[in-house]
Amino acid sequence: MCGDNVHRQILGEIEEELLTLEEDLLAWVNTNIILIKQPLKDMIASGGKRLRPAMVLAASRFGNYNFDNVRQLAVSVELIHTATLIHDDIIDDSPLRRGIPSIQSRLGKDVAVFAGDFVFCKVFELYAFSGHFDLLRIVAKTLHQICEGEIKQREDLFNINLTFKDYLFRVKRKTAMLFALSAELGARASKAPEKTIRALHKYGMNLGIAFQIIDDLLDFNSDNDKLGKPVGADIREGVITLPTIYALKYSGQKSCLKKILAKRYIDEAEVIKAVEIVKDSGGLTYAKFIAEKYINKAQQSIAQLPDIPIKKVLANISALVINRSK
Amino acid sequence: MCGDNVHRQILGEIEEELLTLEEDLLAWVNTNIILIKQPLKDMIASGGKRLRPAMVLAASRFGNYNFDNVRQLAVSVELIHTATLIHDDIIDDSPLRRGIPSIQSRLGKDVAVFAGDFVFCKVFELYAFSGHFDLLRIVAKTLHQICEGEIKQREDLFNINLTFKDYLFRVKRKTAMLFALSAELGARASKAPEKTIRALHKYGMNLGIAFQIIDDLLDFNSDNDKLGKPVGADIREGVITLPTIYALKYSGQKSCLKKILAKRYIDEAEVIKAVEIVKDSGGLTYAKFIAEKYINKAQQSIAQLPDIPIKKVLANISALVINRSK
Repeated sequence: MCGDNVHRQILGEIEEELLTLEEDLLAWVNTNIILIKQPLKDMIASGGKRLRPAMVLAASRFGNYNFDNVRQLAVSVELIHTATLIHDDIIDDSPLRRGIPSIQSRLGKDVAVFAGDFVFCKVFELYAFSGHFDLLRIVAKTLHQICEGEIKQREDLFNINLTFKDYLFRVKRKTAMLFALSAELGARASKAPEKTIRALHKYGMNLGIAFQIIDDLLDFNSDNDKLGKPVGADIREGVITLPTIYALKYSGQKSCLKKILAKRYIDEAEVIKAVEIVKDSGGLTYAKFIAEKYINKAQQSIAQLPDIPIKKVLANISALVINRSK
Repeated sequence: MCGDNVHRQILGEIEEELLTLEEDLLAWVNTNIILIKQPLKDMIASGGKRLRPAMVLAASRFGNYNFDNVRQLAVSVELIHTATLIHDDIIDDSPLRRGIPSIQSRLGKDVAVFAGDFVFCKVFELYAFSGHFDLLRIVAKTLHQICEGEIKQREDLFNINLTFKDYLFRVKRKTAMLFALSAELGARASKAPEKTIRALHKYGMNLGIAFQIIDDLLDFNSDNDKLGKPVGADIREGVITLPTIYALKYSGQKSCLKKILAKRYIDEAEVIKAVEIVKDSGGLTYAKFIAEKYINKAQQSIAQLPDIPIKKVLANISALVINRSK
């Protein structure tokens, strides 16, 4: 269910709670609508690393820890993540998600639009019934920013003049802010000191940036095929990521790369060529270096936290993120 | 902005408040994301009848009326409506919405998915900042039901055995429950008596059912072309509505109609033929009769309400709904 065994073990003391959340997640997406009942159930059951709920649970230990008080918050961040994945897969035309057919490939794009909306409605419902009204504003702000990030990605398609700053703006919104929210929610709900909350928020943000950079790196990796995305899918769709930004600036073949990307309709041979140019430019090494920089920043935030055993779990979550690139 | 002059005049004393809401709506959809900034602004500025906000405002007069207390609630129901329209237009492939290009035709389906999500996020934000936490549960429940209705519509496509009961289940969720919510929100926020709230909820539900039946009737009307939807669009897409349910049961040519709908890929000549069969069957007259029945039910709910001048506005909103069929 929740990732592999190794994954669960390194999450240590929150392992059991994460297993409980699996039941909660299934209950929250349960519905009488036959059309989406099984696909949503399968999507949850197919796993995922549950990094965001793990961060809520770990962060909550820095205050007056009470599982029942943060349980629904942990579910909420995974539901937000699930809803965005469903809508993402429509845009990317992804056949697979976590090794099983995506909702859009099972039910078509039309139903997938409303299936994503359905999960999003559940987030609204969860907060309506949870009583965590004091946290609604930061959740609302993050939801808004996630949407901004997704739309910015569309706005930036095939933009060969994209800067690192543009990329960071997008990555923060698309991914990192939900990590930051997860850490903040756990800490805030358990009334951790404000200084601790700030450090945890920063930890989440930096880890989230690293996570997305590494996710973007995987697009150049042939093993990515297993994830249901062919190599170079981002290039094909015009999504300019960090390795490509590097190559567009420093590759000896940057004019060729620009020409390919400027075409907007890129054939298979050109995708292969573009991937090769990016690899040869050292763009992957550069992106890995930047990801590590953000992992280190995340570690620094951990260092600022009170010295309690759960810090090990936060460090392990960072390790899980790094390991994705290997 | 807000519909035509006649429309505004018959809304009487809430006319000025509705105009204020136009500014609020524009402010709520405002964004720094260039890609969606103008399209969302144009969509709001292109009008719409603002029936749902009008119902919030009118219903709020049955308690301790205070415009500032219900203003954001009135905005929220129009934003919910706007978000569903954006996603609806993706599914229906609609080129126009309120006489201007739809978001999906302007920006493509991909961006439209996130533009709809963006407006939906705004609803979440609005409630997070409005402080109306006591109303969150009924809003969440309605959002859930709207999604159910939309997905049910996909589930029911080309189902020639659809019953009136199935149709009503869908229409209630897809449309009527947001009308019912609108009336209830206004009344609840202004602390109207429970009996009054129930009557207003019922009024909204019955009016909403009539509204959708009439909307479905328009699909058989050649004037519908002006709305950007060709005649028989529902038949073409397999959406079985009340006139078609009637024809499938009572038309002398019902076997021909069944054959056309069972094909799933219906060409233009077949659409024309199917529309003709439905018209000849008396399906439109029947649907109009049923719509009037629900309008009457709505009027009966008005009759149960305390005798204050605003009742005239509620009756006028009903009249606006009926007039759509003429």
